[in-house]
Amino acid sequence: MYKNPHYFSHLAHVELISPKLEESAEFFKNIIGLEESGRQGNSVYFRAWGEHYHHSLKITEGTEPGLGHIGWRADSPAALEEAAVQIEKLGQGIGWIEGDLGHGRAYQFTSPDGHLEEIFWDVEVYEAPATLQSKWKNRPQKNPGRGISPRRIDHITLHSNDVTKDREFYQNIGFRYNEGIFLDANEPGSPEIGAWLSVTNLSHDIAFLKSHNGKPGGFNHVCYAVESREEVLLAADHIIENGYELAMGGPTRHALAEGFFFYVDEPGGNRFELYAGAHLVFAPDFGPYRWSLPENPNDAWGREMPWDKSGKIIK
Amino acid sequence: MYKNPHYFSHLAHVELISPKLEESAEFFKNIIGLEESGRQGNSVYFRAWGEHYHHSLKITEGTEPGLGHIGWRADSPAALEEAAVQIEKLGQGIGWIEGDLGHGRAYQFTSPDGHLEEIFWDVEVYEAPATLQSKWKNRPQKNPGRGISPRRIDHITLHSNDVTKDREFYQNIGFRYNEGIFLDANEPGSPEIGAWLSVTNLSHDIAFLKSHNGKPGGFNHVCYAVESREEVLLAADHIIENGYELAMGGPTRHALAEGFFFYVDEPGGNRFELYAGAHLVFAPDFGPYRWSLPENPNDAWGREMPWDKSGKIIK
Amino acid sequence: MYKNPHYFSHLAHVELISPKLEESAEFFKNIIGLEESGRQGNSVYFRAWGEHYHHSLKITEGTEPGLGHIGWRADSPAALEEAAVQIEKLGQGIGWIEGDLGHGRAYQFTSPDGHLEEIFWDVEVYEAPATLQSKWKNRPQKNPGRGISPRRIDHITLHSNDVTKDREFYQNIGFRYNEGIFLDANEPGSPEIGAWLSVTNLSHDIAFLKSHNGKPGGFNHVCYAVESREEVLLAADHIIENGYELAMGGPTRHALAEGFFFYVDEPGGNRFELYAGAHLVFAPDFGPYRWSLPENPNDAWGREMPWDKSGKIIK
Amino acid sequence: MYKNPHYFSHLAHVELISPKLEESAEFFKNIIGLEESGRQGNSVYFRAWGEHYHHSLKITEGTEPGLGHIGWRADSPAALEEAAVQIEKLGQGIGWIEGDLGHGRAYQFTSPDGHLEEIFWDVEVYEAPATLQSKWKNRPQKNPGRGISPRRIDHITLHSNDVTKDREFYQNIGFRYNEGIFLDANEPGSPEIGAWLSVTNLSHDIAFLKSHNGKPGGFNHVCYAVESREEVLLAADHIIENGYELAMGGPTRHALAEGFFFYVDEPGGNRFELYAGAHLVFAPDFGPYRWSLPENPNDAWGREMPWDKSGKIIK
Repeated sequence: MYKNPHYFSHLAHVELISPKLEESAEFFKNIIGLEESGRQGNSVYFRAWGEHYHHSLKITEGTEPGLGHIGWRADSPAALEEAAVQIEKLGQGIGWIEGDLGHGRAYQFTSPDGHLEEIFWDVEVYEAPATLQSKWKNRPQKNPGRGISPRRIDHITLHSNDVTKDREFYQNIGFRYNEGIFLDANEPGSPEIGAWLSVTNLSHDIAFLKSHNGKPGGFNHVCYAVESREEVLLAADHIIENGYELAMGGPTRHALAEGFFFYVDEPGGNRFELYAGAHLVFAPDFGPYRWSLPENPNDAWGREMPWDKSGKIIK
Repeated sequence: MYKNPHYFSHLAHVELISPKLEESAEFFKNIIGLEESGRQGNSVYFRAWGEHYHHSLKITEGTEPGLGHIGWRADSPAALEEAAVQIEKLGQGIGWIEGDLGHGRAYQFTSPDGHLEEIFWDVEVYEAPATLQSKWKNRPQKNPGRGISPRRIDHITLHSNDVTKDREFYQNIGFRYNEGIFLDANEPGSPEIGAWLSVTNLSHDIAFLKSHNGKPGGFNHVCYAVESREEVLLAADHIIENGYELAMGGPTRHALAEGFFFYVDEPGGNRFELYAGAHLVFAPDFGPYRWSLPENPNDAWGREMPWDKSGKIIK
Repeated sequence: MYKNPHYFSHLAHVELISPKLEESAEFFKNIIGLEESGRQGNSVYFRAWGEHYHHSLKITEGTEPGLGHIGWRADSPAALEEAAVQIEKLGQGIGWIEGDLGHGRAYQFTSPDGHLEEIFWDVEVYEAPATLQSKWKNRPQKNPGRGISPRRIDHITLHSNDVTKDREFYQNIGFRYNEGIFLDANEPGSPEIGAWLSVTNLSHDIAFLKSHNGKPGGFNHVCYAVESREEVLLAADHIIENGYELAMGGPTRHALAEGFFFYVDEPGGNRFELYAGAHLVFAPDFGPYRWSLPENPNDAWGREMPWDKSGKIIK
Repeated sequence: MYKNPHYFSHLAHVELISPKLEESAEFFKNIIGLEESGRQGNSVYFRAWGEHYHHSLKITEGTEPGLGHIGWRADSPAALEEAAVQIEKLGQGIGWIEGDLGHGRAYQFTSPDGHLEEIFWDVEVYEAPATLQSKWKNRPQKNPGRGISPRRIDHITLHSNDVTKDREFYQNIGFRYNEGIFLDANEPGSPEIGAWLSVTNLSHDIAFLKSHNGKPGGFNHVCYAVESREEVLLAADHIIENGYELAMGGPTRHALAEGFFFYVDEPGGNRFELYAGAHLVFAPDFGPYRWSLPENPNDAWGREMPWDKSGKIIK
């Protein structure tokens, strides 16, 4: 009888590689408004004001922009051990590492397409210094109101050379497959263009888009959330007034997952998404809802898509 | 090594008793804007436009307003069986029933204070008739825009004569204890005034408040969610323009759980809450955050509380 | 010494011609959510819930969609007489008519490009029937919450074969020229593509766009306002769920005048704009701010423009 | 035949007296987020980011908090001269002064209750330094996103020992009397508790409340506007997180004029209101709508009033 293993609890952090570390750090601190929570080696760590851990973003200097690694919180100490066993059984395991700033011992693995990931249980819970303490005890710190000031990390979207294979791997480690895009969703075997999966009640914690360039382990964007669509609109002006461009035009609503969003490319070349208003998923057997590419799942209101007719990403 | 059992998936429905069935049904249909999804015996069933099941609210005629029962969706078929075993072990089990409109076989139980509940796996997934079908396949139907038009059920809040006992029972069946109120949160053994718990990423799926009248199985309110605080504000005007009063004044923000809300009493005498903007909880070891009554966890912005100094509900 | 004549008070109503009267009436009543306030001959009259007059929209059956006439409220009885004298002096006067449903004696005139207009003082103040009366005495009726339910008319945008001439005529009857578009705003004599003018504190009560087809008295759109950008977003979904398309894509922000908007074409072929968030203009010597076409005054956030490089409207 | 004189164009600035100049300046700069635009003598000048003049707020050191003076922009050079003649005729004139930072020659006068005011035409139009320039030419500067960051001044509310007399004076200089409060609005001669008047399309530019202490020229609050109710909600948290209290509780909606608001007292003791969502008034013969005190015009949603039963301000 089927039972969800619940190895994973939620997306804890993302490491991005930037060829312009200080410019990227400046962008995330002052334009986006994250809090710098640490520096180590050639990495800078950030957390959003509403997050209870040490960091949700690590930026590491490197030659090419892209993904460093993804960090997941396990659901419990036992779930962590079980996850390691299951991932090893699926042939994607790497092994245990000692941890990083803000969290302990972690089990490393890769997605089938080669994205480096880790899962861990032990974390450092953030304690705000006096000047940042909130009047409300359930907030890890006060909202600094600097830049866009998102509240929390939302999800990560990756490129994959075989969306089906990656999607199935995540389903095999307990992720729910919520929605997907195919060239023709009504035709069995039609090429799979994208897949959206979650372990939480979010519309997705991770998504895969068909890669456009054949490189393994590709990165599309990391997304942070504000709490209202009005804040997304205010943020759009803020981004432009501070010298950046919205990467695919003004805020609009995704049909798939329903997030109200815009993209902006940070100075190091990595895409950032701002998000509000995505639906939550409660049914454990929700979906999957399968979209055909011509249904334009990217924009509920009719704007041109970032894919060409073959499903290749063009924006 | 600790592991969360994940018996429960989410709050699926609530049954309320109304001494004025047709007036209550009219209120939920036209003022709140739920969809009537069935009638059977002396019960009327409703669902919100964004819900994928047959109903989230059942109103049954009876002499006194209050709770009929609470329905939970299990996390999986196996989780349902395990839940029954665990609840029986805890001495709160009643036994299996055949189901109801919209769902199959369910295991009945009571909370320590006597609230009737059930957990089930098999559900009827809602299929909209042609006139209500949405243009977007991930929406179970189009938003009818009638009344307040909430998207989904959010949580239920109950009265308990022993908050501690009820809270511990729910912790023992896998609920996370997120936040709570005590007369003095810093004093061990201080009377427990309220407890907020969840199995989802919502700030709470169920809450308990210290009962004011000694009756077992008491009900405080059922809450539905809209997607923005602006919609809560629009709804406040709508409620008043249609002849109802906001039960505790205009919309404001809870400090505990952060929901932006108002209450209104339906014609049958049951309290309804409208909600947006509550924080989500991702960390499996979040909190619990313990508030002292004088910290006014009910209102972040300073309005008078619904409790007297002894923690007795007065509104 | 300069003195503003203040002949006009504000835009009171617009008459549109529809080849599909009943379909247009159905659209404005149930999709947009205006109140039908009268029928006479082959015309149907509508008002928005927040308007204090008999109507702000009159739809008259006719062979081609387009403008019927524009009705302006004078600033006072004396201002009405002075307006007639001034307009006659400018060579645009037609003469006095007896009035229409909802208003009295009016002075008719045309814009230089041939748009039929009228100015009047005597109006019928709307009195809501008991079922529509608001709890708040400063609201002419309760918000029915039907369809988009805009609060009030905002402005009208017309086509002109000589924007400069039309703009100057309106300036000569007391309108403030707030903003405008030229092929190259920095080059004297550059072709004038558009002009935005107001007599109120709105960003514009009337605007002119260079006509694309040479026909006189052309119509671009009529605009109604809701009170928040969130309501514009909710309305976008509502429009699409009810079988209509957004004429130029999802909601976005105009750079010029700053309104957050979308367009939809009603069944009779006339364009309707929904609006929120435009700035208000208080300085009597505000602007004019002159934009060059390549600055994309139509979209603050970078979406493609509705003009080609010569300033010809293409959408 | 009646004609509105249109002497006044709009509220340009307010001078407040503060016994704690530097603390007040710090509050308006960093908590409210106005831009410091000048210092002279023992005064500090501020403007909001969306304002086109040199300042809208002047804070001057003094022994007691309260009003310094109110500055109005005339509608035109001719209107300024006519205003001076009319005010002198009404016996409230003082005479011409040379001006101040940011504006030229002004005619000083007092309200019947003794509030010092001035009207002027010549103003200095603000030019942003390079670092503050907006990407959009119709914005005087970019939104700095510091503190609450209101866009513009909205209105001023004063105390008066004879509301009727003050109200009639403003009506005699061209203000429209929009709404008012009486002990019993249906009884002729009932004491007048408050009056709301405007020269613009705002719901009020100036309001008078019955004084509670007999002092002449009393001040209640100055109000600035943001563009959405969501921003008012965000601002409420910001105020509290930064160590201030909301003076009369969380944001709520005025029934009279409809603004969504909260109050906060600045360190010098003057009350500040934040505002969004007030209705606009277009009809030149709008209202006046007369409220009885028990109708609670202060709060549309039922919260306790700031007046006792005799109409005396108690909060």
